[in-house]
Amino acid sequence: MTAPVQSAGRSAEEPIRVGVLGARGRMGAEVCRAVDAAQDMELVAMVDEGDWLAGVGDAGAEVVVDFTHPSAVMDNVRFCVERGIHCVVGTSGFSDARLEEIRGWLREKPELGVLVAANFAIGAILSMRFAELAAKYYESVEIVELHHARKADAPSGTAHRTAQLIAAARDKAGMGPIPDATTQEQDGARGADVDGIRVHSLRLSGLVAHQEVLFGTAGETLTIRHDSLDRSSFMPGVLLGIRAVRTRPGLTLGLESLLDL
Amino acid sequence: MTAPVQSAGRSAEEPIRVGVLGARGRMGAEVCRAVDAAQDMELVAMVDEGDWLAGVGDAGAEVVVDFTHPSAVMDNVRFCVERGIHCVVGTSGFSDARLEEIRGWLREKPELGVLVAANFAIGAILSMRFAELAAKYYESVEIVELHHARKADAPSGTAHRTAQLIAAARDKAGMGPIPDATTQEQDGARGADVDGIRVHSLRLSGLVAHQEVLFGTAGETLTIRHDSLDRSSFMPGVLLGIRAVRTRPGLTLGLESLLDL
Amino acid sequence: MTAPVQSAGRSAEEPIRVGVLGARGRMGAEVCRAVDAAQDMELVAMVDEGDWLAGVGDAGAEVVVDFTHPSAVMDNVRFCVERGIHCVVGTSGFSDARLEEIRGWLREKPELGVLVAANFAIGAILSMRFAELAAKYYESVEIVELHHARKADAPSGTAHRTAQLIAAARDKAGMGPIPDATTQEQDGARGADVDGIRVHSLRLSGLVAHQEVLFGTAGETLTIRHDSLDRSSFMPGVLLGIRAVRTRPGLTLGLESLLDL
Amino acid sequence: MTAPVQSAGRSAEEPIRVGVLGARGRMGAEVCRAVDAAQDMELVAMVDEGDWLAGVGDAGAEVVVDFTHPSAVMDNVRFCVERGIHCVVGTSGFSDARLEEIRGWLREKPELGVLVAANFAIGAILSMRFAELAAKYYESVEIVELHHARKADAPSGTAHRTAQLIAAARDKAGMGPIPDATTQEQDGARGADVDGIRVHSLRLSGLVAHQEVLFGTAGETLTIRHDSLDRSSFMPGVLLGIRAVRTRPGLTLGLESLLDL
Repeated sequence: MTAPVQSAGRSAEEPIRVGVLGARGRMGAEVCRAVDAAQDMELVAMVDEGDWLAGVGDAGAEVVVDFTHPSAVMDNVRFCVERGIHCVVGTSGFSDARLEEIRGWLREKPELGVLVAANFAIGAILSMRFAELAAKYYESVEIVELHHARKADAPSGTAHRTAQLIAAARDKAGMGPIPDATTQEQDGARGADVDGIRVHSLRLSGLVAHQEVLFGTAGETLTIRHDSLDRSSFMPGVLLGIRAVRTRPGLTLGLESLLDL
Repeated sequence: MTAPVQSAGRSAEEPIRVGVLGARGRMGAEVCRAVDAAQDMELVAMVDEGDWLAGVGDAGAEVVVDFTHPSAVMDNVRFCVERGIHCVVGTSGFSDARLEEIRGWLREKPELGVLVAANFAIGAILSMRFAELAAKYYESVEIVELHHARKADAPSGTAHRTAQLIAAARDKAGMGPIPDATTQEQDGARGADVDGIRVHSLRLSGLVAHQEVLFGTAGETLTIRHDSLDRSSFMPGVLLGIRAVRTRPGLTLGLESLLDL
Repeated sequence: MTAPVQSAGRSAEEPIRVGVLGARGRMGAEVCRAVDAAQDMELVAMVDEGDWLAGVGDAGAEVVVDFTHPSAVMDNVRFCVERGIHCVVGTSGFSDARLEEIRGWLREKPELGVLVAANFAIGAILSMRFAELAAKYYESVEIVELHHARKADAPSGTAHRTAQLIAAARDKAGMGPIPDATTQEQDGARGADVDGIRVHSLRLSGLVAHQEVLFGTAGETLTIRHDSLDRSSFMPGVLLGIRAVRTRPGLTLGLESLLDL
Repeated sequence: MTAPVQSAGRSAEEPIRVGVLGARGRMGAEVCRAVDAAQDMELVAMVDEGDWLAGVGDAGAEVVVDFTHPSAVMDNVRFCVERGIHCVVGTSGFSDARLEEIRGWLREKPELGVLVAANFAIGAILSMRFAELAAKYYESVEIVELHHARKADAPSGTAHRTAQLIAAARDKAGMGPIPDATTQEQDGARGADVDGIRVHSLRLSGLVAHQEVLFGTAGETLTIRHDSLDRSSFMPGVLLGIRAVRTRPGLTLGLESLLDL
């Protein structure tokens, strides 16, 4: 547990009291560092497997950040909601049924906010949103995602989601299929087809996590590229979530809801 | 003058009757081709220097597109407004005084629309808008614009405008200056300073017109790139303007007002 | 037939007398323009289907450029060799048998040169050569080729050839397979496999012809990108071939043999 | 001092015995890790300021790697040469006079090798070499180097060196100045001028160390890009130097001399 950071001379407001669940995990540890360094926050509890969950309540946390495990997260959120603690949840594995269950708990606590987000990289969120906005102005679009050689799945979750958003935007604008004259093709050359959008997955040593969305129409192309070099890139999004969740009662899905887009 | 293109079997609506001023210029000629090819438009008049301006009125044009010259454009717009013809204007050289004059004429014709735009490339408009939206989420930003070696001015007008928009967005978000530890610099290495934003101008044979806006913060970067290969890239924007100006009374500035962003 | 271009005041040397076969085709016409504009060449004959082939001999051509058709090119080359005219051949469809046949004809004319090349874009040749040189220093490599949406085959011939060259260089250096941890893959996501090298083919309106070779190893990546915007990009290579073929007796394969690499 | 790593079952050869000077510095520590992990090397001595230099001799080092300080390096090299130990030197600050001094010492030990290199990133070396080779085929060329916002000097040393190599190659090929029609310029927009080559320095949070060399001629461009993400990218070059220096008697300048280019 770290000493409170006073935002002395900057604001009369009290710092936000934050607890972190999964504090010894890779993401959790990074969150602890980021909260600790934030001028307007105080890290009041670091909890991990085997620790006593009630500690976050006793420490007076106003907001809890959860980067734990699909098998633990529902109990954690329920505990927090019951104690009147806002939640920022980055743990994966949320089905519609789970979200509905959280909505049920929140009905009893109308002033409380829970944010569930799959991706806290602001650049990834902006990329997806810009891709969605640009989609209807370009007849062609493809996605290239590039990751380190140890990644097990292809395409990446973000590329898959981006393709779905673009496909939905094209559909809404009444656009037909993307023009493609390919008649002679070596297997796999044209990428994976995600809702009609081609996605290409590159895996190279020396890369980290990168994505390019390429749009094209007569005489011009527009490219939106996001390069993520390390876990620190998720922290501005987590801090944004902590600040915002206190004033957004109910269940909020996705960091995009908090951005000014 | 081309034969009317019927949008037979596609729509019960009459095609939009379009006249082009500056029809023999490079942009005007491209507009004639694009209007002629558009299913929902009819090219009813092609006028250039030495032609009788009244022709566009006689031909029953509903919308006139003007790519002429700063010395001619005000007379053209006045003529069209008096005759009740909507205008899409791509000619340069508009001062605030000129815009005010057009607003004055339009007061007499409240149903009429005039669109004045400096840039009809949708990709350039989207780039600028996305840059404006992303600005407040990244502590660092620089612009690289790349053009053919025959370009006379540096930086490009679009890069200059993009820098201004980003600077204004940063200012509005209360952001301070961009971090820069440079203490030892060869003259020009860090680019031109446009409202505190660094802009780098590359000139190479084999290039056409390209721009990259690079945003950076801890652990990640976001890049928005626009590549324009020829004049045809402006046509989707001109056609969008023709379609939209009829239902937007008064003076509209910039194609961005017509996009769904 | 164009007027001779005198390299007056620049050199005491006589201009090279060039004939073009396939002069009305897209590439042939471009070659005629390029030869005509070159200070050290004179365009003495433009021949196409239906013209009398003997014309190139009568016109005194020293070098003939052939961009015709696989069904015509062997007769053309034989004719030129018999008349003592050097050949630069860009027509496709050369099998080993055909090349052997040309070698046979050239045995009778030991002073004569024939250059057969599949690609005259110097940038493409340099890209392939650099990729070949870099191959053994990087454990990972993939190729992305990007073309306009009207292209029928995927991957492109240049990407296919580049992959083969890289694979051969890796093999020669005793390198094993590229590391790839993918276990869960959507069909096509990881691209086509050309001799163990992944190749991704993008097709977008607004693009022309582009290729990126990405190399990666611990902590770094190296990218070689070639962008070709129009047919004029092949002309420096054709002119280089014309100049060089006169002093390279026998059959020369590929423009790469003429570059100083 | 780490335990010897046996390359058991892989080679009958003895591992190379390596000592590291500056072993507690950032680069030195990375070198220790890399040598320790290499199957064909044994890390026999780690020496830093305050340690007894003679330790590397006593430990039986065949090759010493020096990443120390300009004020210490000459004594270190002299010591090693006297003891018959090959040297790989990455410390900066080498003047011609210093190099000449080393050559003098080596005259007494004709079998000994010393490698002095300013840059051990193989990708940077390849980039520079490829840029040098491509230079004479393109009328236009500019360099963009992109680094983190804490970098003090602009342009980077690598960009400066790359520009010099390109300028020399152009000069040797008898090429004139790069075409540039700029007449109206905002200060700094066209970058720094290094021997006639424009260099642009970008500084952004979230970047590490990146460089792009852009070549252009009619209708095409060629881009060579190097991205370096961390210090580990220098290690393949250091290991290559260790392996090669034992069989290259005398003074070798630059890692490029060891690459097969």
